[in-house]
Amino acid sequence: MKNLKTDGSRLWQSLMDMAEIGATPKGGSRREALTDEDKEGRDLFVRWCEEAGCTVTVDAMGNIFARRPGRNNDADPVVTGSHLDTQPHGGKFDGVYGVLAGLEVIRTLNDLEIETEVPVEVSVWTNEEGSRFAPSMIGSGVYGGAYDIEYAHSREDTDGKTQGGELERIGYLGDLPCGGRAFKAFIEAHIEQGPILEDEGRTIGIVTGAQGLKWYDVTVTGRDSHAGTTPMPARRDAMAGAAEMITAITDVALANPPHAVATIGEMRVEPNSRNTIAGEIFFTIDLRCPDGELLDRMAAEIEKTCQSIAESRELSVELDRIANQTPFVFDEATIAAVRDATERNGFSSREMISGAGHDACYLSNVAPVAMIFVPCEDGLSHNEAENATPEDLAAGCDVLLHAMLDVAGTART
Amino acid sequence: MKNLKTDGSRLWQSLMDMAEIGATPKGGSRREALTDEDKEGRDLFVRWCEEAGCTVTVDAMGNIFARRPGRNNDADPVVTGSHLDTQPHGGKFDGVYGVLAGLEVIRTLNDLEIETEVPVEVSVWTNEEGSRFAPSMIGSGVYGGAYDIEYAHSREDTDGKTQGGELERIGYLGDLPCGGRAFKAFIEAHIEQGPILEDEGRTIGIVTGAQGLKWYDVTVTGRDSHAGTTPMPARRDAMAGAAEMITAITDVALANPPHAVATIGEMRVEPNSRNTIAGEIFFTIDLRCPDGELLDRMAAEIEKTCQSIAESRELSVELDRIANQTPFVFDEATIAAVRDATERNGFSSREMISGAGHDACYLSNVAPVAMIFVPCEDGLSHNEAENATPEDLAAGCDVLLHAMLDVAGTART
Repeated sequence: MKNLKTDGSRLWQSLMDMAEIGATPKGGSRREALTDEDKEGRDLFVRWCEEAGCTVTVDAMGNIFARRPGRNNDADPVVTGSHLDTQPHGGKFDGVYGVLAGLEVIRTLNDLEIETEVPVEVSVWTNEEGSRFAPSMIGSGVYGGAYDIEYAHSREDTDGKTQGGELERIGYLGDLPCGGRAFKAFIEAHIEQGPILEDEGRTIGIVTGAQGLKWYDVTVTGRDSHAGTTPMPARRDAMAGAAEMITAITDVALANPPHAVATIGEMRVEPNSRNTIAGEIFFTIDLRCPDGELLDRMAAEIEKTCQSIAESRELSVELDRIANQTPFVFDEATIAAVRDATERNGFSSREMISGAGHDACYLSNVAPVAMIFVPCEDGLSHNEAENATPEDLAAGCDVLLHAMLDVAGTART
Repeated sequence: MKNLKTDGSRLWQSLMDMAEIGATPKGGSRREALTDEDKEGRDLFVRWCEEAGCTVTVDAMGNIFARRPGRNNDADPVVTGSHLDTQPHGGKFDGVYGVLAGLEVIRTLNDLEIETEVPVEVSVWTNEEGSRFAPSMIGSGVYGGAYDIEYAHSREDTDGKTQGGELERIGYLGDLPCGGRAFKAFIEAHIEQGPILEDEGRTIGIVTGAQGLKWYDVTVTGRDSHAGTTPMPARRDAMAGAAEMITAITDVALANPPHAVATIGEMRVEPNSRNTIAGEIFFTIDLRCPDGELLDRMAAEIEKTCQSIAESRELSVELDRIANQTPFVFDEATIAAVRDATERNGFSSREMISGAGHDACYLSNVAPVAMIFVPCEDGLSHNEAENATPEDLAAGCDVLLHAMLDVAGTART
């Protein structure tokens, strides 16, 4: 079966067709979770799956499962998939690629009349993006036991509409319970959303896990005073203190290569006036690392350093840790199936850790999981200009096909 | 005349009466330039001056001059004064003190039936604060030749009302030309608006000049990217670059004690999202120093350092210098009159440089100028909680009386 290939142009055409739904002027798509556009995207996917002979079921979180039977239909299925919802200014590939690569695998199995030992399924997970209803990854999160379903249904958008109500409105509040059904494996294909594969000229990222993450809200308090009349030693300048903290925080990440990253992406200044020394600064910290112990150590060092900078400047600082996610470690055997599939196809590759969260993360709590990354242009994502080449997308889809067949077993072998 | 004293309680009462106009809930005043409240404050001042026997004139910028004749009325007058307009959340003393201390000098001269050799005048300068119409200090600025009157009249507030139109509306568009009339001296009393006198336990600041100032708008441009998936070395993080620049900028001021000050009071972040590396940061620099050459050297160093930080991080930076004021140096002889008056009264004092701008600054272009500072609580100003003690205010008024008499000469001597 070495020469098995998916149909890259059919995959590309499906991606372009799906992108028409909610198409944006700059070439992206807007299909936020449980909007009319999301419904239209789901309906198209369901129609395609039914045309491919699959049985489609929907669970109580609106997660969709399109099943292609195997020889032994009592066995746990091998599942692939991702999400169809997008950011408000989303691209054509984030999530959609993983769903439609799964569909292409099924179409290829049909074309080649391959019967698998266990069933294979393509899944669509509800509201991965979290832009309309927070938190993100809630469909897979409920499935993986991170959230309970009442919590998920009660989440509201800014208009006060609930996630449960909107699931019902668009016709995707399914009968199946969310979770409790075992997968033989879950393999998700996705664009990298970062620059590593492109920079190194490699085609496939064999993803072995996802980073742990800590989020902080930081408030530095000093004293407002006149920029012209307050001598430097008399200042309690929250901005000068925050600047020193920001440098110290990014230095902590820099001192722990290659995986640790620290980002200060948000800041508010009070009173934010050119000739008044800032009395209060709010900023955020996003700290990530695939090594949980190192993540904890870095967080402790950052907390201590910020306190000591504040003390030395007669400021006060509060660090409020609003998110704390331990790293996800994927399944050795499933990763090995992806690695073997990559080698069998002769693609250049590297093992890597996902910097972003994906549906596979929460599913790794309840199933053996692996992921396949393909390069995206300039590492750009969450952006209408998000791009990937048809060749790389086809390569990732071939790896997915081979890895799924490896785990599912082929009746023909 | 060693025992000449002003009436501190009458001065205090006048300050409290004026503060009733536009009184704010937290004990301050709101009389922004050329509003109905500003008109009401001006009307009260004019009534008080007329009751004190002064002749009141108004120039084309709405600057008010209340004149007490001397023995030789062809001679240039000795002038004092400041402003009656306030910040939106202003205090009771900023500006008002200098005006009403001048009125108290005239009332004292009347009480003691002292005839001066040359006339004395109390002045009120239009729109010192600049909060409603930018720029600040425009009444004294036109008088001192820094702006022409067409420019000043055409300045608009956020509702599109012009300064000239509002002067006319409140009845203070006077017939006199603004400027061109010589002063024998101009001596302005003011609260310090900084902490130095209070910290050192001194009563009088003998102000010898005002700092030079440079204002910059700084834009640092990097690249938006995903906080989780972009390795530290691949980042073009505008926030990390800005933080390093801010530390470097404040370090330049710290390296040049005791007068140099640098403030970053304002910042905006794009896209200002917790999990996106900032692609653009805007911040301001307020750099001040009484030594013009040192100010230029510091500015050059800051510009160079910001460029070099940007280069080392693959960022770009633009520094737009939007204001550039050389230091003001006051008049030796007039300063000496203030110094003698302080010593004669036995008040503790120090010479100092004004950190803030005052009407006296622009007037120093066209007249011999000095200033008298008195302490204010915690150095706080531009704040409803602005405060000063009746004793310190009376002391500054006594110094003003003696210094004015010294320069004006007394017919009785």
